[in-house]
Amino acid sequence: MVQKLMVVEQVLSANDRVAENNRQYFDRHAVFAINILASPGAGKTSLIEKTVQLLAARLRIAVIDGDIATSLDADRAAAAGASAVQINTGGECHLDAPMIAGALPQSVLSASVPEGDDKPYKYPGTYRGVNALVINKIDLLPYVTFNMDYFRQGVEILNPGLVTFPLSCRTDEGLDSWIHWLLQATLQFQEQSR
Amino acid sequence: MVQKLMVVEQVLSANDRVAENNRQYFDRHAVFAINILASPGAGKTSLIEKTVQLLAARLRIAVIDGDIATSLDADRAAAAGASAVQINTGGECHLDAPMIAGALPQSVLSASVPEGDDKPYKYPGTYRGVNALVINKIDLLPYVTFNMDYFRQGVEILNPGLVTFPLSCRTDEGLDSWIHWLLQATLQFQEQSR
Repeated sequence: MVQKLMVVEQVLSANDRVAENNRQYFDRHAVFAINILASPGAGKTSLIEKTVQLLAARLRIAVIDGDIATSLDADRAAAAGASAVQINTGGECHLDAPMIAGALPQSVLSASVPEGDDKPYKYPGTYRGVNALVINKIDLLPYVTFNMDYFRQGVEILNPGLVTFPLSCRTDEGLDSWIHWLLQATLQFQEQSR
Repeated sequence: MVQKLMVVEQVLSANDRVAENNRQYFDRHAVFAINILASPGAGKTSLIEKTVQLLAARLRIAVIDGDIATSLDADRAAAAGASAVQINTGGECHLDAPMIAGALPQSVLSASVPEGDDKPYKYPGTYRGVNALVINKIDLLPYVTFNMDYFRQGVEILNPGLVTFPLSCRTDEGLDSWIHWLLQATLQFQEQSR
């Protein structure tokens, strides 16, 4: 038992060091970095694609994409106008959290309407830990059972006052508020970094 | 390093023992057990709900449901007519694979239309490892970008001849083929177990 704890201890402190290095690197270069997380198929890549298209003229954007296989997602981000790096992990579908995500100041969750309105209740830790919430695929609201009040109530309990962006990357509805928020947050961060 | 490997070794062999015990238990009682896996929001619970409703008169069904929090899913399975057990894992969203899933002879993946048609290409390991595939939420096909031929082509490369059930738990379209297959597979297994 003592041996097991020692191993965990060593792994954590190595990860912490890497995260700290990344954090310093981003700060030194005034890079506003956000971690976008979502279920497979919730529309992370479509959101990134649209965001890059709409902000590429005003900001220099890079995307680090972690996936098990293929560079499909990074290719889409690159086509939209970002510098994109794909990391294929082989087995895990996420980037090693402490190495990349741990270094990021902002975490944005992308939920999506067809996943269902019970998700905040089922994944409370995820909803508690984010700084902003995108509710993607709102164009599907007429075709699925999704009670927006019930969903928002769950979010409010877990993360009171969380800034929320209902939008559709298919119809572009609601994208303007998200883009405005992201641009402001970036400029504010870079102002502070000076 | 050697200590780390020793710990891993111990954990693996403990899991193997548990999996083997479960397998023997299911076989001894002629229980046909299937592992249903899917992304959050792909419709596992709706599929289980419908399946239990349609088969409860002919089979005795039990559901073991693993989730981070709440018993929402097990409650729905129970209301549909199954014996249901919820295992709240606290942090992980999956049941400990070797303990439950490792003991099951059949693995069914539930994909869903709004997740997108690129999923076989992005998660090849998952598609390779299953015995049947449900394509859920086909009622949303008119409202999303989903090329069924492209999707099926990806599946065919990874898992040639995989039995596939496009269906909608909302409109009930296609459920009959899935129910028929599941019933036949169960009866065949129980015939062999005698």
